[in-house]
Amino acid sequence: MVAGNRIWTAALVVIGDEILSGRTQDRNVAQIATWLNVQGIRLAEVRIVPDVEERIVEAVNALRHTHDYLFTTGGIGPTHDDITVDSIAAALGVPVVVHPEGRAILEAYYAGRGGLTEARLRMARVPEGAELISNRVSRAPGIRIENIFIMAGVPHITAGMLDGLTGTLEGGRPVVSLTIGGFIAESDVADLLREAERAHAGENGGVSIGSYPFFREGRVGSNFVVRSEEEARARACIDALMRALTAAGFEVVEGGI
Amino acid sequence: MVAGNRIWTAALVVIGDEILSGRTQDRNVAQIATWLNVQGIRLAEVRIVPDVEERIVEAVNALRHTHDYLFTTGGIGPTHDDITVDSIAAALGVPVVVHPEGRAILEAYYAGRGGLTEARLRMARVPEGAELISNRVSRAPGIRIENIFIMAGVPHITAGMLDGLTGTLEGGRPVVSLTIGGFIAESDVADLLREAERAHAGENGGVSIGSYPFFREGRVGSNFVVRSEEEARARACIDALMRALTAAGFEVVEGGI
Repeated sequence: MVAGNRIWTAALVVIGDEILSGRTQDRNVAQIATWLNVQGIRLAEVRIVPDVEERIVEAVNALRHTHDYLFTTGGIGPTHDDITVDSIAAALGVPVVVHPEGRAILEAYYAGRGGLTEARLRMARVPEGAELISNRVSRAPGIRIENIFIMAGVPHITAGMLDGLTGTLEGGRPVVSLTIGGFIAESDVADLLREAERAHAGENGGVSIGSYPFFREGRVGSNFVVRSEEEARARACIDALMRALTAAGFEVVEGGI
Repeated sequence: MVAGNRIWTAALVVIGDEILSGRTQDRNVAQIATWLNVQGIRLAEVRIVPDVEERIVEAVNALRHTHDYLFTTGGIGPTHDDITVDSIAAALGVPVVVHPEGRAILEAYYAGRGGLTEARLRMARVPEGAELISNRVSRAPGIRIENIFIMAGVPHITAGMLDGLTGTLEGGRPVVSLTIGGFIAESDVADLLREAERAHAGENGGVSIGSYPFFREGRVGSNFVVRSEEEARARACIDALMRALTAAGFEVVEGGI
């Protein structure tokens, strides 16, 4: 692979019984995926595991060496079911310590709110050697250790932590994604899609075309998404696809529908 | 473990570049988790993988032996990026064949719609030995082979396939889940939660209490979810928690807020 074209990847471990029970709809996968893409990093795998230390350790150790970055969400609050810090420390074989800066943040915050109890102090615990990720949205910081980024479960707090990380992680070229769509049955255009993808193959993975069918207003339709690391190639492919679909008599909407 | 108390588990492999790119918000994890719980089966792990055969094979083979059931969603349409059937056949070491009943369904459907093209016939392909899962919502059937259930990516089509499976999978006792909540900072009640969980421990895992903080209308709050396979135990625990929170001066809402 040519220098500069290295593909940077990340994995995400979502820690949460509430997601696996169906009680809570996860929003962090989409949020982190979108954010990563802007950093030029590709989300390559997600695992959702229960609040069980050995399952968290297993997932973290399976993914932290095979990707440039590993994110986790969930389980960093003050209650007994928040075991992410302990689990990641166990995965890395380091002890859990109280981070002095984290303690100072909590002390200041709880000064007029009953003081820093043992439960509250839990939120300043980190795997030894970790640094904090600043968070302008709420006071709770995220945690970074090695290539692991430990984020909150509550999506808008995670957003604050991502904001604190923006521009700090090395990545490659963001994947460019262009969409067209219409009330077109994907089975009517399968050959045409395959042909367009093949015609725009290239050295760096060329383009990939995804076909996403939907049913709306009682009608069948599809959106077609062209992804590439090369904007010109993505543009050429989507233009060719547009022409081919139009020539075949379909009404196509740029940007998708 | 006493007979009748066996815990049945399922894993889910979500196949989809569109989820990993952040373009599409997954809805199948929550939908399948909720459905499984009614069947007395616990969703124990989810992996989201890209549209890459070797990654699908790896996930399927890692999970199909360690859980009673394995579900997949996505990648069973007519286009070139639909590679789930081929990948699962590869994982199982069986060839891909055209299912006669699947072919008949498609022939009937496309009779007045231009006929059964090669692309459309792709949707009748199954790993050899598979049976179809009926689907009243759309014509597209799901696929079952061994303990693997291959579902659509479009959530309402998956819903139809789940409907076709309802009551057909052996499970255990559904997990009972009871919720209370209030504008309570979880760090104020962490000890109380831990104590309630400990006091209601039992042979079959007892209860687990999850604490889910939120920020709403400018205020901090939390919902507390008690889960147990024994309804009486879950009820006793939530009642005790309710009393303890009320005695500590908190306003608590049954059912959560």
